[in-house]
Amino acid sequence: MKCRKCGGRAVLELRRHNTALCGPDFVGFFRRHVLETVRRWRMFTRDEPVLVAVSGGKDSLALWDVLHDAGYRTIGLYLDLGIFDYSRASKARCEGFAAERGLELRVVAVADEAGAPIPAVRDATRRPTCSACGLSKRYLMNRAALDAGFPVVATGHNLDDEAATLFGSTLRWDESALARQTPVLEATHPKLVRRVKPLFRMSERETAAYAFVRGIDYIVEECPFARGATSIAHKEVLNRLEDTSPGSKAMFLQGFLERARGLFQARETVTLAECVRCGQVTTGEVCAFCKLRDQVTRATRPSRPAPAAEAHPLDLPGTRGLIADLHAASEIHAP
Amino acid sequence: MKCRKCGGRAVLELRRHNTALCGPDFVGFFRRHVLETVRRWRMFTRDEPVLVAVSGGKDSLALWDVLHDAGYRTIGLYLDLGIFDYSRASKARCEGFAAERGLELRVVAVADEAGAPIPAVRDATRRPTCSACGLSKRYLMNRAALDAGFPVVATGHNLDDEAATLFGSTLRWDESALARQTPVLEATHPKLVRRVKPLFRMSERETAAYAFVRGIDYIVEECPFARGATSIAHKEVLNRLEDTSPGSKAMFLQGFLERARGLFQARETVTLAECVRCGQVTTGEVCAFCKLRDQVTRATRPSRPAPAAEAHPLDLPGTRGLIADLHAASEIHAP
Repeated sequence: MKCRKCGGRAVLELRRHNTALCGPDFVGFFRRHVLETVRRWRMFTRDEPVLVAVSGGKDSLALWDVLHDAGYRTIGLYLDLGIFDYSRASKARCEGFAAERGLELRVVAVADEAGAPIPAVRDATRRPTCSACGLSKRYLMNRAALDAGFPVVATGHNLDDEAATLFGSTLRWDESALARQTPVLEATHPKLVRRVKPLFRMSERETAAYAFVRGIDYIVEECPFARGATSIAHKEVLNRLEDTSPGSKAMFLQGFLERARGLFQARETVTLAECVRCGQVTTGEVCAFCKLRDQVTRATRPSRPAPAAEAHPLDLPGTRGLIADLHAASEIHAP
Repeated sequence: MKCRKCGGRAVLELRRHNTALCGPDFVGFFRRHVLETVRRWRMFTRDEPVLVAVSGGKDSLALWDVLHDAGYRTIGLYLDLGIFDYSRASKARCEGFAAERGLELRVVAVADEAGAPIPAVRDATRRPTCSACGLSKRYLMNRAALDAGFPVVATGHNLDDEAATLFGSTLRWDESALARQTPVLEATHPKLVRRVKPLFRMSERETAAYAFVRGIDYIVEECPFARGATSIAHKEVLNRLEDTSPGSKAMFLQGFLERARGLFQARETVTLAECVRCGQVTTGEVCAFCKLRDQVTRATRPSRPAPAAEAHPLDLPGTRGLIADLHAASEIHAP
């Protein structure tokens, strides 16, 4: 198979683009696509410093690589979830990446902020792990960016991630989730920073190939808590459709963004306030992260004769509706 | 496995309803669900005669059986597509069903109306067979009902059919198709009759079980042209999701009808006129079926020195946009 551009040996066939490219030409292709996405979707300008949320996986490190190479001012943010060896290994990859390039990496540990690492948060809240983790990550990303004066956080979500999320939301016709599905979540409140996904048009296979060709040392393992996740089943469905009809994933996501999202967005109304406890944005009085932290505090305190539940100073009435709040918290970026 | 109602031997487990039923109790369950659907969606009243479009398959014959048994005034309509043995066998099933019950069956042959049977129509138009066939069926059903003074045509589309159609439209975010997806297409023009789908909440497995338990002799084979159809691939995807999570097909369709369809419908504007040739409804000047018939006429005429293409009296400018017209024709029921 020959590179369509230079005639050299192709390393990757891109069926949906009906082309095949050698390593260097693929790197150029990938970068052009990502930077064009940044410009066309007005994700950030040359003047804006970008906080890149990195997990140690191929997507976020590929994103950081592209942005740094293109001359954007970037700092990495690693959120240490405290998920045993998985977190240790992924943190090492981020540190290695930053050190090699002389880039700054900031590390925030969920355990310091939520009171316990993700495995203990899961036990304390008895909620799906990915939900508590997602809430914590969105909260901490936003706060880290605000504290450091960054107007924008970029994440490594790729086409497969976005199409799978859309697929799940569509199967449930979850109007709020559909209204929020966009590669650019604007800052609709002074306490929110813009959240952007410059890789949303690149497939998982393409980001993996980019990371490989660029020699990026990334963590290959998936998070141990992701096993059996619905999003993985949905990715498999979409992969089968893509096999039969190359381009269907992109068509599904792009068609939604162009023709349907506006309908759901127009119906969505969210009133934002500041959390009376931490000052971050919430749709209620106390934000979902503060409630989560309360739950963790209660669950991890050494056992002793418990006072009557209603007398506990942290047992605010609102904490009982945590599921609804976690849901609302993921909406706070809805325009 | 025991019947949850009478304790007898169950013949069918209904996972999404978390129950199992014996033959007689399943028949009762099925009928109640269908009749409740007719009432709740105001498909037709007791006073309205119903033209039931039957294909000889399990769904449409099960529908006719339920409606006739419940005392509705029904007449069957069989559209003879002229698809070789498949059509002969399916027509015989419809005739047998009607004769056994002393019901009237009307037969309309596509060959008489379009100028050729479906296989020749396909060759003449070089279009996907299912598309030309669907157009012909919708047109002829509507005309047969109008001619005979029926206010409503009922078809046997089941939950699997409707969910697969919705799935395909959603993957493409086809706004017009999404706006039209409903179990009740109202008559929005004097030349249109209402089109309803009383089985849209019953799964394919359930209609098959009903036909089996009721001893209905139906044609098991699929139409030979349906092989490899995208809708079949989509049904398989939905079946896998249903296996993992029973009820997901119904949730997908119901969620759409409750929360999303209105958004697409509100944006849809279609202006209806009467075809200058046949008087049936069209969004243009000449309807898609008349254009289809013209194409068939030209293609099936004995060959002789052809006059210049532009001089041919039937080669109206509009016929060149047949694909767009076929598309528009499927929209004519859009409210």
